[in-house]
Amino acid sequence: MRVGAAGGAGVMLAAMNMLGLSPATPASAAQFALPPASGNGKSVVVLGAGIAGLVSAYELQQAGYRVTVLEARNRVGGRAWSIRGGDAVEHLGHALQQAQFSEGMYFNAGPARIPSWHHAILGYAKRLNVPMEVFVNTAMATGWDFNGKVRPGRQMVYSLRAHLSELLTKAIDQGALNANMPKEERDGFKQFLQFYGGLDGKGAPTPNPSFGYSDWPGGYDDPGKPLDPLAFREVLSGRAAAFPQFFESIIDMQPTMMQPVGGMDRIAHALYMAVQPTVKLNEPVTAIRREGGGVRIEHKGGITRADFAVVTLPAQLLERIPNDFSPAKKAALKGINYLKSAKVAFEAPRFWEDDGVYGGLGWTDKLNENVIYPSNSFHSPRGVIVGAYVAGWTHQDTPEAFTKLPFSEQVRISAGSIEVLHPGKARLLEKPVVVNWGNIPYSEGVGALWDGGPGADNGRRTGAYLELLKPEGPIVFAGEHLSYVGLWQEGSALSAHEALKLLQAMASEKAGKRAAA
Amino acid sequence: MRVGAAGGAGVMLAAMNMLGLSPATPASAAQFALPPASGNGKSVVVLGAGIAGLVSAYELQQAGYRVTVLEARNRVGGRAWSIRGGDAVEHLGHALQQAQFSEGMYFNAGPARIPSWHHAILGYAKRLNVPMEVFVNTAMATGWDFNGKVRPGRQMVYSLRAHLSELLTKAIDQGALNANMPKEERDGFKQFLQFYGGLDGKGAPTPNPSFGYSDWPGGYDDPGKPLDPLAFREVLSGRAAAFPQFFESIIDMQPTMMQPVGGMDRIAHALYMAVQPTVKLNEPVTAIRREGGGVRIEHKGGITRADFAVVTLPAQLLERIPNDFSPAKKAALKGINYLKSAKVAFEAPRFWEDDGVYGGLGWTDKLNENVIYPSNSFHSPRGVIVGAYVAGWTHQDTPEAFTKLPFSEQVRISAGSIEVLHPGKARLLEKPVVVNWGNIPYSEGVGALWDGGPGADNGRRTGAYLELLKPEGPIVFAGEHLSYVGLWQEGSALSAHEALKLLQAMASEKAGKRAAA
Repeated sequence: MRVGAAGGAGVMLAAMNMLGLSPATPASAAQFALPPASGNGKSVVVLGAGIAGLVSAYELQQAGYRVTVLEARNRVGGRAWSIRGGDAVEHLGHALQQAQFSEGMYFNAGPARIPSWHHAILGYAKRLNVPMEVFVNTAMATGWDFNGKVRPGRQMVYSLRAHLSELLTKAIDQGALNANMPKEERDGFKQFLQFYGGLDGKGAPTPNPSFGYSDWPGGYDDPGKPLDPLAFREVLSGRAAAFPQFFESIIDMQPTMMQPVGGMDRIAHALYMAVQPTVKLNEPVTAIRREGGGVRIEHKGGITRADFAVVTLPAQLLERIPNDFSPAKKAALKGINYLKSAKVAFEAPRFWEDDGVYGGLGWTDKLNENVIYPSNSFHSPRGVIVGAYVAGWTHQDTPEAFTKLPFSEQVRISAGSIEVLHPGKARLLEKPVVVNWGNIPYSEGVGALWDGGPGADNGRRTGAYLELLKPEGPIVFAGEHLSYVGLWQEGSALSAHEALKLLQAMASEKAGKRAAA
Repeated sequence: MRVGAAGGAGVMLAAMNMLGLSPATPASAAQFALPPASGNGKSVVVLGAGIAGLVSAYELQQAGYRVTVLEARNRVGGRAWSIRGGDAVEHLGHALQQAQFSEGMYFNAGPARIPSWHHAILGYAKRLNVPMEVFVNTAMATGWDFNGKVRPGRQMVYSLRAHLSELLTKAIDQGALNANMPKEERDGFKQFLQFYGGLDGKGAPTPNPSFGYSDWPGGYDDPGKPLDPLAFREVLSGRAAAFPQFFESIIDMQPTMMQPVGGMDRIAHALYMAVQPTVKLNEPVTAIRREGGGVRIEHKGGITRADFAVVTLPAQLLERIPNDFSPAKKAALKGINYLKSAKVAFEAPRFWEDDGVYGGLGWTDKLNENVIYPSNSFHSPRGVIVGAYVAGWTHQDTPEAFTKLPFSEQVRISAGSIEVLHPGKARLLEKPVVVNWGNIPYSEGVGALWDGGPGADNGRRTGAYLELLKPEGPIVFAGEHLSYVGLWQEGSALSAHEALKLLQAMASEKAGKRAAA
C-alpha cells in the first residue's frame, strides 16, 4: 500500500465548513514567481535538466539570474521521458534498445498522467502553451485478469458494491446498526443501498446493467442480458484483486487525469525552449565543491563556477558524486530507497478499441500487473499499448521479481497478459521497448520511497528527510524526493519552488550585506 | 430513478464463466451492412434527418437503394444539435434566441457524450473519420452543492465509502456477518475495509487524502492537511445528494465516455456529407399515405412517392401527422411520454480550471440540477459551461418545475448555481442560450420514457411498444424510442438497423415474387 496516501493527521476545518465553501486548491502553486529582477545578474548553476532543474532555470531566468544548467544525458526531461521511433534506450548491464515506433507514436516511459490538482505542473503547461488532453485512468470496459479469469472491470467494481450493500442490508435487518442510526434513517439507508448496490427486492445482488451485458441491448425488441453479479469471494480473492477496487480513490489517481498532447515530455520540452541557451547536455557532474562564497562544479566538459547551485539529482546518484557536503548531509543521502518500476510497451493496431476499450487500465495478478491503453488518437490505425507497468500495485514482490528477468521474458509476459485480455491479438504486438528504471543511467529508480523508509515517521517525515532539505551554504536542493508529492512531476516543481525561495533569501541577504558594507 | 438501468432478468453465463473470458461487446453493431447491391434501384423515402434517418439513408445508399430524405428543419442531426455563434434557437411559445458564442465555441444542446460500448454510433464515427476525444463525466474536483453546502465531489464520494466501511466493520465486530462468512474471511474483509474506506486503526473514518486537502501537500516540509470525513447524514442527506453517488454506475455513464471533437453534431454531419444529395431540408411532412404497393409522402414542397418509407419521427409528432396507419398503430402512438429536459449554457473565461476543474459534472439540489464543464480545449481562453442540465437527476419535479419558468429566470438560477460553486465568478458568464426540449419544434421532447409508461412491463416492454415496431405495409419505423438504448444516438442507429432489416426482407420478397411471376 505504499503508493498513495500520505498518512498525516487532519484538522477540523470548522471555519470553512461554516462558510459552506469548497476548499480551493492553491492558486499560488500555479503562480509561483521570484521577485522580478531579484536575480540582479547573480549566477546559478543548476544540476540536472529534469523538471526540477528546468523549473529552477525558468524561474531563475525570469528573475534575472544568470543560469547554467548541466545535464548528464543528451536530452532534457529526466524521468519525464517519452520514447519515439529512433530513440536509443540505454540500460546499465543490458544491450542497447533502439525504439522502432512509427511516426507520431510515443511511449511515456516515466510519468504518463497528471492529476487535476497538480497546479504547478499544469500551470507551466498553461503558461507555455502545451496543449493538454484527458488521460483515462479508469475505463470500465477494461479486463481484470485475476486467478485465471478475465472479467470486465465494471463487473468487478459493481459486484463488490452489490455485496457491500447486501451485507449492510443484512446487518440492518439483524439490528446490528440500531445503535448507529434511528429507525427512519435505517429505512432510508436500506432504500439507498438497494439503488447503490443494484439489489433486488429482497436485498440480494441481481443481474444488473452496471455489470455490463452478455448480450448488449439493441434496437426494437432486444433488451439485452445483463451480467450476473460475481461471487464475493471472486471479487475480493486476494491482494491483487483488491487493489484496483481502491486504486482510483488515491488522490493522485482520481479523475480528471491529464496528459500533454503528443507525449509527457512536451512540458519539459516547453520549459527547455524557454531556457535553451542555458542548458548544456552531455555534461555529467563529477564533483560538487564550494569555493569562496560560491560553488565550483566539475563536470565532463570542464568546470563551472557560480554564486549558487540548485542540485536536482536523485539522492542515490548524488551520494556517489564527490562533494563538500556536511557529514549530516552525507549520512542522510545514504540508503534512500528508490522505486525501481518497469514498463514494457508495444506498438499495435488498435484491436482493444474493437473491444470497446478507449484508454484506461487493465489489471492482472500476473507479473506485468497493469496494462495501459492509449487515451489519445482514438480510431487511428495504430497506438502504443503499455503491456506492463510494474510498480508493486498488485504484487508484493514486484518490481524485483519482474525486473530480474531477461528483457525478452519481460516482453513475453507482457504480451501473454495482453493475449489473455484480448484473445488472439498478441500476434499484432510489435516493436517492444522495455524500460527498467532501476537500470536507467542517471536515474536508477523512478522516485524516492519515503513511507516506512529512513526519514519517515507516521507519514510526517523526520530525520534524514529534513536534513536533505537544508542548503549546504550556497547550494540548495530540489527534486521529487524533496516533496510530499513524490514520484510526480508536481513534486519536482514544488520542491524547486522551495529551493528557489531559500536561494533567493540567501541572495538578498548577500546583497543586503554588500549594500551595508 | 427513471434514468438508467433497464431492469431485465439476467441469465447465468455458465459457459462464458468456464472459459474465463470477458464477454465481448458485439462487433456486429459496428459492422452493420445490408447485402451489397441488394437495393437494386428500389426507392426509399426516409422521414427525418436525425441519426436514425441519416443512418438509414447511409446504409440504404450503400446497398444500392435510391434514397430521398425529408427533413423538416433547415439542418440535419435532429436532437444531436450543437449550437454555435449565429445559430437561431427557436422555441414554440418563446421569443427567438440568437446564439452569440465566439468562433470555435459550441454547445451540445442534446446528447453530449457517448459511452464506450455504443459501438454502432462509434462505428460510424470511425468509418467516417470523425475525430473522437474523451468526455469527462466524473471529475472529483467538481463541487456538489446540497443543503446550502458546497463540497468537493471527492469528499462526498469517499466519505460515503468511509461510512459504509465503518458500518460494515461494526457489523462484523458485532457478529452480524458470522453466518455469511467464516472467521478468516471476516478478518481479511475487515482489513480490506480499512484500506477501502480509509479507516483508522479502530475502524473509524479519519482525515484522508482521498477526500482532498484543506492545505494541499507541497515541496519540502509540507505534508498538507487532508480534509475530514463528512458526516454520514450530510453525505446522504436526501434524494438529491444520493443520486450522484451512483450516477456513474449507470452503464451509459461509466467511463470511458467520448465526444466528437468540435461538437456532437459532427457525426450527423459526417453521415450527411456521405448522403447529402438525397437530403431535402425544410420539408416538414404533412401526410403519410400508402399508394399501390408503395408510399406517398406529402410534404411542404410537394409529394414524394417511393417503394418504401423509413419513418424516424418522434412518436408524439408522428401521431399528429395524417396517416393511413392501422388502428392498432394509431392507438399505440398515443400518450407516449417524452422527457422534456432543458439545458442552459454560457460562454465564459475558464475560471473553473483555476479551481482545478477540468471537465466533469457539478451537482446541486437547486433547480438547475447539474453543471457540465467542457472536456476539451483545456487552458484555452474561453469555453462553454452548461449551467443547467435539468432531467430529473436530483429533483423529483424537474424538468417541469424548471421549464415552466421564464427563460430569464432559468438563466438566473443557472448563473446563481455557478456563483455558489465558484464564488465571484458568475459575473463572467456571457451569452446565455436556453434550450427547453419540450418546446423545440420538431422534437417536443428529448426521448421517450418507457419505464413505467405505456408499453412497459417490468423493464421488458410489451403492448404499445411492440406495436410500434411493426411495419405498416412498406413503411418501417426507427428512432431512439424504438430501442432499448433509448435517449441515446446509439438507440437511433440500432433501431434503424432493425428497420432496415425488415425493409430489406420485404424488398427481397417483392423481388422474389416479381422473379417468380
